[in-house]
Amino acid sequence: MKKFMAILLALIVASSAAAYGAAVSADQSKLSLQSEKNSNVKNLSVTEEITDAPKYVFLFIGDGMSYPQFQAASDYLGAIDDKDYSQALPSVSYDDRNGAVLNGPKALNFMNFEAAGSAVTYDSCSFAPDSASTATSIATGEKTYSGMINVDITGSKSFETIAEKLHDQKDWKVGIISSVNLNHATPAAFYAHQASRNNYYEIGEEMIDSGFEYFAGGGLKDITGNNDDKANLYDLASDAGYKVVFTQEEAEAVTADDGKVIIIDENLADSDSMSYEIDREDGQYSLADYVEKGIEVLDNDNGFFMMCEGGKIDWACHANDAGASVNDTLAFADAVQVAVDFAAEHPEETLIVVTGDHETGGLSIGFAGTDYDTYLDNLTNQKISYAKFDEDYVSYYKENNIPFETAMEDVEELFGLKLDGDESDRLVLTEYEAGLLRTAYEKAVSGDSEMTQQEYVLYGGYNPFSVTITHILNNKSGIDFTSYSHTGLPVAVFADGNGADDFNGYYDNTQIFDKLASMLEVK
Amino acid sequence: MKKFMAILLALIVASSAAAYGAAVSADQSKLSLQSEKNSNVKNLSVTEEITDAPKYVFLFIGDGMSYPQFQAASDYLGAIDDKDYSQALPSVSYDDRNGAVLNGPKALNFMNFEAAGSAVTYDSCSFAPDSASTATSIATGEKTYSGMINVDITGSKSFETIAEKLHDQKDWKVGIISSVNLNHATPAAFYAHQASRNNYYEIGEEMIDSGFEYFAGGGLKDITGNNDDKANLYDLASDAGYKVVFTQEEAEAVTADDGKVIIIDENLADSDSMSYEIDREDGQYSLADYVEKGIEVLDNDNGFFMMCEGGKIDWACHANDAGASVNDTLAFADAVQVAVDFAAEHPEETLIVVTGDHETGGLSIGFAGTDYDTYLDNLTNQKISYAKFDEDYVSYYKENNIPFETAMEDVEELFGLKLDGDESDRLVLTEYEAGLLRTAYEKAVSGDSEMTQQEYVLYGGYNPFSVTITHILNNKSGIDFTSYSHTGLPVAVFADGNGADDFNGYYDNTQIFDKLASMLEVK
Repeated sequence: MKKFMAILLALIVASSAAAYGAAVSADQSKLSLQSEKNSNVKNLSVTEEITDAPKYVFLFIGDGMSYPQFQAASDYLGAIDDKDYSQALPSVSYDDRNGAVLNGPKALNFMNFEAAGSAVTYDSCSFAPDSASTATSIATGEKTYSGMINVDITGSKSFETIAEKLHDQKDWKVGIISSVNLNHATPAAFYAHQASRNNYYEIGEEMIDSGFEYFAGGGLKDITGNNDDKANLYDLASDAGYKVVFTQEEAEAVTADDGKVIIIDENLADSDSMSYEIDREDGQYSLADYVEKGIEVLDNDNGFFMMCEGGKIDWACHANDAGASVNDTLAFADAVQVAVDFAAEHPEETLIVVTGDHETGGLSIGFAGTDYDTYLDNLTNQKISYAKFDEDYVSYYKENNIPFETAMEDVEELFGLKLDGDESDRLVLTEYEAGLLRTAYEKAVSGDSEMTQQEYVLYGGYNPFSVTITHILNNKSGIDFTSYSHTGLPVAVFADGNGADDFNGYYDNTQIFDKLASMLEVK
Repeated sequence: MKKFMAILLALIVASSAAAYGAAVSADQSKLSLQSEKNSNVKNLSVTEEITDAPKYVFLFIGDGMSYPQFQAASDYLGAIDDKDYSQALPSVSYDDRNGAVLNGPKALNFMNFEAAGSAVTYDSCSFAPDSASTATSIATGEKTYSGMINVDITGSKSFETIAEKLHDQKDWKVGIISSVNLNHATPAAFYAHQASRNNYYEIGEEMIDSGFEYFAGGGLKDITGNNDDKANLYDLASDAGYKVVFTQEEAEAVTADDGKVIIIDENLADSDSMSYEIDREDGQYSLADYVEKGIEVLDNDNGFFMMCEGGKIDWACHANDAGASVNDTLAFADAVQVAVDFAAEHPEETLIVVTGDHETGGLSIGFAGTDYDTYLDNLTNQKISYAKFDEDYVSYYKENNIPFETAMEDVEELFGLKLDGDESDRLVLTEYEAGLLRTAYEKAVSGDSEMTQQEYVLYGGYNPFSVTITHILNNKSGIDFTSYSHTGLPVAVFADGNGADDFNGYYDNTQIFDKLASMLEVK
């Protein structure tokens, strides 16, 4: 929303050509009127636009979410709602398309935001950086090594974060939400300062010291320290005045009157993170619910800053689980929607920024074996994340020496992949795929966790059976990954509301901080 | 470059609040002053900005070039000029980085353009569309099936292109440049209308009929038709008044006085396209030279439109040849630079748009086997494209029954990969890699061109030896591909100069046409 109050005021007040070339400033507005070399009217140009600073700022970070992740989710929505596409197009030849038409992707809410830029993500040691260094750049405008949180590469200098600045300098309330652990790298980068992201206990202590009003999401890691010999972080939080709740019933009862709040999700899953969206049960709090509750806690006339991380997009892509990634990306968009709805009630006062910290997995909408065809609707056959399948099924197979063929009955039910069936059924495994899966199964149940270099390329650090299942389902859907780590792709930066236009362009990820700090007038 | 001439004129003329709410139009400018519900000054907002329409428009299309391609080229430039990075960082552990710092990527010229948006690329039958349909969308604002050029999905309705509109309605001169064949899909989409991109002869006829003033680049395909029974297209071009030249000496001598010109590159390479940049010899015309010559031919006070395609970025990525892709992307940026220099001499009159038509290959800066490390400087060891290696070397090996070990001597010289050497040398093949390469060699020289489904995933339609060499070099550089086809990643749209801001945002590729047509006032 661009405002031209100041320029108009200036012109009206001056009411003459004398106003040209004058620099005019208005409260919460920036303007410079710059006359060019020729002083005629035609060459007069406004170089900076006037923007009212927002007082409600939402920063959504899809961890590991770059163009491939949200475009895949958007294409998936298009595919599953498009009969021409899923039933005819990908299987017919150029000459036999008979008027069937692909309707195309369905844009996620943030893909329609008024501004859309890109941020480059390299850090001080890698073109494929980690979440600690990239979140440091977003939160403080500084580059550092992978693994470091808001300190310089020597570990000796500390950087203040945008959240801290707003909390301290403007007395804004601050909320931090993550679907993974609240002392994981991305949320930590808004309140902690540590030479290693693995200093979970110290990060937890800084979380408590932050005094931020609202934390919600996954459970803390290393609650009593690395050696299990320290005071429980949750107790320390209570001592420091936080209301700490662990059940959804208590979470639902939280109000602004509770003061500082930490909500730990009741249904913690792998590594004490929130469930993958694909595993979340009806009625169970979602990321969106935590945003909604956060607004309730944080809303005040002074202003608030909320960072919400969709952390399991990254975890899903690390594991090359496209089905889980798509579902968590959609859950992330649902969380963004809560902010969009809030903004609709607070126009002219709200800024929503949606970005990622880096790409994870080298995800592509396309695969060597399917050429120009994709079958994204195949992903609907997946009913469970790789992680829950590991936990609930593969452990059982291993303990009970279950034969491959028996395990494949579950695989058919949970992922759609079958050993036998009609050739036209795209989910029937080829002999080659069945061989890959059998080899992986044997490795998975053997208890042999050593991997050759080549096995590492095949399985990453994951359970060989689960990761091979998702690899095959991905490929049959026309999707592939190149890595179990992050990649060097730039991330998108979408913005809507006051100051959104600042986020257009192609820039370094440190500029996300710079733009916010400048707009919000913190130092 | 935003101009506020009209708003100022309106205010000065009116010199009172009566001007609020008035719609004012000025030559080549669009403006609407819209008062909102409250009539007070604060709520007055300008909804459309004034922009002088450019009269020199450059549209650069990197075929197959999306975020991964230009970011990889940018990272490569950073890597080869960064001793910390190439000599220390990627090999050292978290705790042993000793202050070495990665300087990061070096931005290609267009990555610093004032505007940067994204365009979604799906077509009427695929999320991984082809160059015919995507170039149709860019040139005409219409979606169609893969393989079709400027006709609807029934093939019965023809769409007029932005180049035709400017040529006919505004009497602008038009130039079309491509590093691949001038009747290939992307250049064709600016002058032809065919139900199949394979109608090369008919496309050639339409090229001649276009009357566009300048064509330059790769040679025409099917010059005398599919059955070799038609009039030579070059003769037809001459008959139609084109000066057709085939040598660089003649090309250099071309001036604006020559009227309509077709320049065919003297040093045609694979499939009569221009050489890959990595194979181009000193002094041999580059894509940039054709842009420069084109400006000389097209420059006139009325205006011109030039489309320049970097077509071999796509061909390189189809073949998963990262080294060739990076070099052709840099050559593409060099071509853009010529337009940037022209714009500097014609400020306020020039618009440069740089985009891609789709992503090719699912390129990632990152690979499962190298995790968070990249070794992009390894690509400097590659001295030849896969295509020239096929032509000049592999054919010879096959004809002369050359042993694998002998062939590997060339491979070491041309790609750096070695069978033996010190373990610390990152280019020494592992046993596994050597095995892959030997298997591929045997397949390549056997003359057996049939491929199993799995071999197709390994080799695509390419020479098994060449493609395995580049696969291994890619992986050792920290790069990987997922496909030999196009993928569904959005493309970037960079813009600089008059009207550039229109290209910010996240939109459909058809809007590239819409924005141009609206700005340039053609119907």
